[in-house]
Amino acid sequence: MGISNRDEMVEKGEIALEEMNKSSKKLIEDQEEEEKREVDESVDESVERIFEKVEVPSWQRQLTVRAFLVSLLLGIMFSFIVMKLNLTTGIIPSLNVAAGLLGYFFVKTWTTFLDKSGMLKQPFTRQENTVIQTCVVATSGIAFSGGFGSYLFGMSSTVADQSKEDNYMNNIKNPSLGWMIGFLFVVSFLGLFSVVPLRKIMVIDFKLTYPSGTATAHLINSFHTPQGAKLAKKQVRALGKFFSFSFLWGFFQWFFTSGDNCGFSSFPTFGLQAFQNRFYFDFSATYVGVGMICPYIINISLLVGAILSWGIMWPLIEKKEGDWYPAGLGPSNLHGIQGYRVFIAIAMILGDGLYNFFKVLGRTIFGLYQQFCNRDNRDVLPLANSPSPVTPSISFNDQRRTKLFLEDRIPTWFAVGGYVAIAAISAATLPHIFSQLKWYYVLVIYVFAPALAFCNAYGCGLTDWSLASTYGKLAIFTIGAWAGAAHGGVLAGLAACGVMMNIVSTASDLMQDFKTGYMTLASPRSMFVSQVIGTAMGCVISPCVFWLFYNAFPDLGKTTSKYPAPFALVYRNISILGVQGFSALPDNCLTLCFVFFAAAIIINSGRDILGKKWSWLIPLPMAMAIPFYLGSYFAIDMCVGSLILFVWEKTNKAKADAFGPAVASGLICGDGIWTLPSSILALAGVNPPICMKFLSSGTNTKVDTFLGS
Amino acid sequence: MGISNRDEMVEKGEIALEEMNKSSKKLIEDQEEEEKREVDESVDESVERIFEKVEVPSWQRQLTVRAFLVSLLLGIMFSFIVMKLNLTTGIIPSLNVAAGLLGYFFVKTWTTFLDKSGMLKQPFTRQENTVIQTCVVATSGIAFSGGFGSYLFGMSSTVADQSKEDNYMNNIKNPSLGWMIGFLFVVSFLGLFSVVPLRKIMVIDFKLTYPSGTATAHLINSFHTPQGAKLAKKQVRALGKFFSFSFLWGFFQWFFTSGDNCGFSSFPTFGLQAFQNRFYFDFSATYVGVGMICPYIINISLLVGAILSWGIMWPLIEKKEGDWYPAGLGPSNLHGIQGYRVFIAIAMILGDGLYNFFKVLGRTIFGLYQQFCNRDNRDVLPLANSPSPVTPSISFNDQRRTKLFLEDRIPTWFAVGGYVAIAAISAATLPHIFSQLKWYYVLVIYVFAPALAFCNAYGCGLTDWSLASTYGKLAIFTIGAWAGAAHGGVLAGLAACGVMMNIVSTASDLMQDFKTGYMTLASPRSMFVSQVIGTAMGCVISPCVFWLFYNAFPDLGKTTSKYPAPFALVYRNISILGVQGFSALPDNCLTLCFVFFAAAIIINSGRDILGKKWSWLIPLPMAMAIPFYLGSYFAIDMCVGSLILFVWEKTNKAKADAFGPAVASGLICGDGIWTLPSSILALAGVNPPICMKFLSSGTNTKVDTFLGS
Repeated sequence: MGISNRDEMVEKGEIALEEMNKSSKKLIEDQEEEEKREVDESVDESVERIFEKVEVPSWQRQLTVRAFLVSLLLGIMFSFIVMKLNLTTGIIPSLNVAAGLLGYFFVKTWTTFLDKSGMLKQPFTRQENTVIQTCVVATSGIAFSGGFGSYLFGMSSTVADQSKEDNYMNNIKNPSLGWMIGFLFVVSFLGLFSVVPLRKIMVIDFKLTYPSGTATAHLINSFHTPQGAKLAKKQVRALGKFFSFSFLWGFFQWFFTSGDNCGFSSFPTFGLQAFQNRFYFDFSATYVGVGMICPYIINISLLVGAILSWGIMWPLIEKKEGDWYPAGLGPSNLHGIQGYRVFIAIAMILGDGLYNFFKVLGRTIFGLYQQFCNRDNRDVLPLANSPSPVTPSISFNDQRRTKLFLEDRIPTWFAVGGYVAIAAISAATLPHIFSQLKWYYVLVIYVFAPALAFCNAYGCGLTDWSLASTYGKLAIFTIGAWAGAAHGGVLAGLAACGVMMNIVSTASDLMQDFKTGYMTLASPRSMFVSQVIGTAMGCVISPCVFWLFYNAFPDLGKTTSKYPAPFALVYRNISILGVQGFSALPDNCLTLCFVFFAAAIIINSGRDILGKKWSWLIPLPMAMAIPFYLGSYFAIDMCVGSLILFVWEKTNKAKADAFGPAVASGLICGDGIWTLPSSILALAGVNPPICMKFLSSGTNTKVDTFLGS
Repeated sequence: MGISNRDEMVEKGEIALEEMNKSSKKLIEDQEEEEKREVDESVDESVERIFEKVEVPSWQRQLTVRAFLVSLLLGIMFSFIVMKLNLTTGIIPSLNVAAGLLGYFFVKTWTTFLDKSGMLKQPFTRQENTVIQTCVVATSGIAFSGGFGSYLFGMSSTVADQSKEDNYMNNIKNPSLGWMIGFLFVVSFLGLFSVVPLRKIMVIDFKLTYPSGTATAHLINSFHTPQGAKLAKKQVRALGKFFSFSFLWGFFQWFFTSGDNCGFSSFPTFGLQAFQNRFYFDFSATYVGVGMICPYIINISLLVGAILSWGIMWPLIEKKEGDWYPAGLGPSNLHGIQGYRVFIAIAMILGDGLYNFFKVLGRTIFGLYQQFCNRDNRDVLPLANSPSPVTPSISFNDQRRTKLFLEDRIPTWFAVGGYVAIAAISAATLPHIFSQLKWYYVLVIYVFAPALAFCNAYGCGLTDWSLASTYGKLAIFTIGAWAGAAHGGVLAGLAACGVMMNIVSTASDLMQDFKTGYMTLASPRSMFVSQVIGTAMGCVISPCVFWLFYNAFPDLGKTTSKYPAPFALVYRNISILGVQGFSALPDNCLTLCFVFFAAAIIINSGRDILGKKWSWLIPLPMAMAIPFYLGSYFAIDMCVGSLILFVWEKTNKAKADAFGPAVASGLICGDGIWTLPSSILALAGVNPPICMKFLSSGTNTKVDTFLGS
C-alpha cells in the first residue's frame, strides 16, 4: 500500500526522497519484464535463487575502501545538488536512481578494469552496492535535514531583516562554518542509535513495506543480474548524455548572467506582464528534470497553486493596498503583500501537515494495536503487506534474508549506551552553540525523541512518508513558546527544530536502509557503519557546500536573488508565530489563513474519501502552497518536464519508463554540478561577460538613447 | 555527370535551385529501394511500363484550374521565402522538393476528398503535377531573377548612399510597384520564346541530362506509384511538423525584437567579441534548413571564407586604419574597411564566374562539336549520359516518351514571331522605364541574347549549372561602359543586367521543364503554357512581395538591417567598376583583389585537376566569397544544419535520406512564411513588446544605474 500513497508524499516543501519509487518501481518492473524472457516468472518471487550460488561476504568485507571513496565523490556531488534545490525552491526530488546508477557505474568500471588487468581481489557485490547507496543517501540527507534552506539559515540576519519581527540580537545567529559543523555532529547521530534495537521488530516481525528501501533493493538486485547490468549500462549512457547536455547548458547560460535580472533565468517567455507575476519558463534543466521525476499530480498542483495565488489572489489583494495593508511598503515587506503570501502559505502547509500527522499517527496506533493483538498470527496483519494470510510457510527469499539479517547482531546495550552518551554530550554542548537553547530544553527533546523517532520510522514503513519536518515544527512551537520572544525564543525554536528533525529523519532513513540491506543480504552492521560514516561525511560536506554558496552569492536568501532559500523565511515566521501569536499579521490575513488552513484539511479529506479512483483529480494542498510564496516559474519548468514525459510515454512507453528516470537524473545532476564551478567563479570574482536583458519596448528606446549619447 | 558536379553549383550567391537534386536523388533512390521489394529491379529502367495502362490526358486537360490555383498559392508562399532569402544573404537553396511535396499534397487531398464524395471528374495525374511544379518554379524564379536582392534594388538611393560613387541623379531609381511590374513583364517572356524551337534538339537528339529536371521527374513519377504515395504522405507529415515548429519559433522570436540589435538574431552565442566580428549563431530556422539542403562542401566553404575574412583578414586590415585607408570613416564606408570587404568579394566572385564561364563554354563547344561530328551515331557522345554506346536500340521508356513529346508541337513560326514581337515591344518600352537605357542598347542585347540563352540552356543540360548572373554581369560591364558614368552608365548597366539575366535564366528553366515533361509524359505545350502563366504570376507577385518588405522594413538594404540585401551593393559596385575602372578602390585593395581573383581561378583549377576523389577537400571560391561581405552568422547556422544532418545520417541513414529534405524544407518554409505576418505587423505599426538585449557587463551596470535613477 505504500506505493499507492505516493501521491501524498510531499512533506514540508521536500518531495520526500522516496518519490522516486514510482519511477524506480516502473524501472524495475521493466527490467523484470526483460528478465522474464529468459527466466521463469516465478523467479521474481524468489530472487535469492538467482544469487544462491553467490557467496555473501562478511560484514567487514562489505565495507570496502573503494565503496567509501565512491560514496565520498557522489556524496559531494549530491550535496551540491540538494543544496542548490534547497536554496532555490526547497523542492527536492529523489536522487536514488541517480545514486544507484552512478555508484554501480563507478565501482563496476573500476572492478572491470582491474579484472581485465588481472588485479581484482574482491568482486563487486550487491552488498557493497547497498553500502554505497546507504552512505550516499546519508551524506546528501544531511544537506536537507541540516536545515540550510530552512531552520538553520532562518536564524541569519539576512532572513531576519525580511521578517522584521523580534529582531533582537539574541534571535539572530549568522551562519559560520565552525558552529554549523559542530551542531550537526552533536545532533545527527542520535537518530541512528534510537531505532537500532527496533530493527528486527520493524523489518522481520512487522514486515513493514518501506517502499523506498524495497525499490532501492530491487534496483540493486537487478543491477547484479546479467540482463539488469545490460540495461543499467544503457541507462548510465542516457544519464551521461543528459548530464553533459545539462552541464553545458548551465555553462552556456552563465555567460549571459552578468547582473540582476539577466540571462535565461529571467526570460519573460510569456511576456513582461506575466513575468511581473512570476509566470515564465526559466529554462532550468534541473526543474524540467524534477518535473519528469515527480508524479503528474504534484506538478499540476503546483501550477494550480500558482494560478490561484499569483494569477488571482495576489493581484486582487494588491488592489487593496492602503486599505488592507499600508501603502508603499514595497513588494517584500512582511507587513504588506509579502505577509499575505508567506502566512497563507504557512497556514496551508500547517493544515496539510497537521492532517497528515494525525492520519499517520492514527494508522501507526491502529497498526501497532493489531500487531500486539495478533502476535502469534502475524500474517493476519492487514497493513504490513504480508504475502497471504493462508500461507504461513516462509518463502525461500525470506528464509535466506532473515537468516543473514539476524546473523550480525548489534547489541542493545551498544545502542542504548550510544544514545545516552551522545545525548549527554549534546545537551552539554548545544547551549554553548545556542545560548538561547537551555540544556533542559534539549533534555526534554531527547526524552521524547525516541518515541517520535519510532513513530516516524513506523509510519514511514507503512506509508513511505517521513514526517520529519512536521515533528520539527512541533518542536518550534513548544520550545519557542516555552522560551519566549525576549529570551531568544525565535532562535531557540529554530534550534530545537533542528535537533528534532535530525533525530526523526535519520531514524527513518536508517530503517529504510535496514530494509534494503535485508533484501540484498547486506549485514545490518555494515548498514549501520555505512550510515554512520555517511552521516559524518555529510556533517562536514554540507556545511562546506553551504558555506561556498553563502560566500559566492552575497544576496543568498533575498527574495530577488537567484537563491532565495524560500523556506528559511517560512521557518523563521513559523517560529515568530509560535512565540508571538497572530499579532504580527496584516488585516484580514488571519481570516485568509484560517480559510486556507481549513481548505488544506478539507482537500486532503476529500482525497482520502474519494479514494484512488478520483483522488488524482484533486490537487495536493502542500504542493499548492509552495508557489504561493515563490511564484510559478519552477512549476512551469516542472510541467514542461511532465509534458515531455507524457509525450514520451505516449510515443514509446517502454522506453520512457526505462530511461525517463535516468534522463531526468542526468538533467538534475548536470545542472546541479554546474553550481560548483559557477560558485567558484563567483568566489573568484569572475563576472559573466554579457547581460541578456529584457526591456519593454519603451524602456528600450530610452536605453538606446542613453547609450547613444 | 551532371549530378557529380553538384559541388560546384554555387552561382552568384545563389546556390542554384538545382542543388536540391543531391537530396531528391537520394530520396528517389530510397523510394526506389522500397519499390524494389515488390517490383522487379528492371522496372526502374522502364518506369513507363508501370504507367502503361494509365491514360495520358490531352495537353489542354493537363492545364486544370485547380493546378493553377494551387500554383498561385504555392507561388506566393515561395515568393515570400525566396524574397526573404534574397534580402538576408542571397543564398537560395532548391525548394523543388518542398514545391513537389506540397503541390502533390494539396491536389491529392482535394481529389481524394472529391473522390470520396463522388464528385471527382478528372483524376490527379503525373502530368498535372508537372504542370504545378513548372508553374511554381517559374513564379518563384522571378523573385530571384527579378533582381530584388541584386540589380533592381541596386538602383535605389538606399544602396547608392552606401557606395557613394557616381551618385548622380540619373544613376538612381528608387523602387516603385508600377515600373517594376512593367519591367518584369517586358523582359521575362523573351527567354521562353528564344529556346522553344530547340527543345527537340536538346532533349531528344542531344539527350542532355538536365539533372534537376530529371530529378524532379523522378520525384513526380514516384509520387504516383502506390509506394511512393505512402512515403510522400509521411514526408508531407514531417514537412508539416517542422513547418509549424519553424513558424511558431519565428513567432516566438518576434516578441523579443523591439528595436535594433534585439532578439535571437543578435544572440552573441560565442561572446560579444566574436559577435562584433559577426561570428554568432542567430537561431534562424531558415538557414539551419538551408544548411541541411546544401552539400557539406558549401557550408564548409562558407565557414572557411568567414574565418579567413572576418577572423583574420579584416582585423588585420583594420589595424592599418589611417594608413591603408583614411581613419574615422566608420565600418560601412566603401572607402574604408567596407571597400576591402566588398571589392575582394567581388573579385573572387568574378574570378570564379569567369573560370566557370570558360569551362562551361569550352564544354558546350566541345559537346556541340561532337554532336555534329557524330550526327548519325549519337550514342557515342560521351557527355550526354547515354545509356550505353553498344545498345543503340531505344528503351520502352524512350520510345513512349519521344512519341508523346513530339506529338504536341509548338510551331517554329510561333516562337520566332513571339520573340520578335516581344523584343520590339520591349525595345520600345524599356527606354521609357529607364531613360538611361537607350533603345539600341536593348536591341544589341536582344540580338545576342538567343545565342547566350542557347549556351546557357545547353550548359545547364550538361552540368546543371545556370550561369544566368554571369551573363548578367557581362551585360553590366559592356552596356555600362558603353553608356559612361555621366550618362547614367551605372543604372544602364544594372538595367541591362536585368534584361540579360531574365532571358538566359528563363531559357534554361524552360528547358529543364521540357526535360521533366518529357519524362512524365507531360506535353511540351502544357509545359510552355504553364511556364508562361507562372512567369506572368511571378511578374505580379514578386514586386508586390518586395513592395511589402520595402514598406514594412524602412531600413531594408542597410548593412545593419535585418534585411541587408547584400548583393544589391555588390551589383551596384560591379556596375561602378565597369563604368569607372579601379579608381574608386582604396589603397592596396586592387592588389588584394587581383590576388583573390587569381586565387579563385587557381582553387577552381585545383578542384578540376585533382578530380572527384580529392576535390571535396578544397573549398568553393564562390561560397567562400559570400561571407567576406556578410559575416559568418549564416555560415554557422548552415553548419549547424550540416551537423544535424551528419549526425542523423550516422544514426539512421535511411531515415535521414528519406526525411532530411522534407524536414529542411519545413524549416525553411515555416520561417519564410512567418515573414508574411511579420511584415504585415510591421506595416500596421505593431512593435514587438520586448527587447532581448545583450550588453557587456560594464554597459549593463551603467544601464542599471540609468534605469534605477
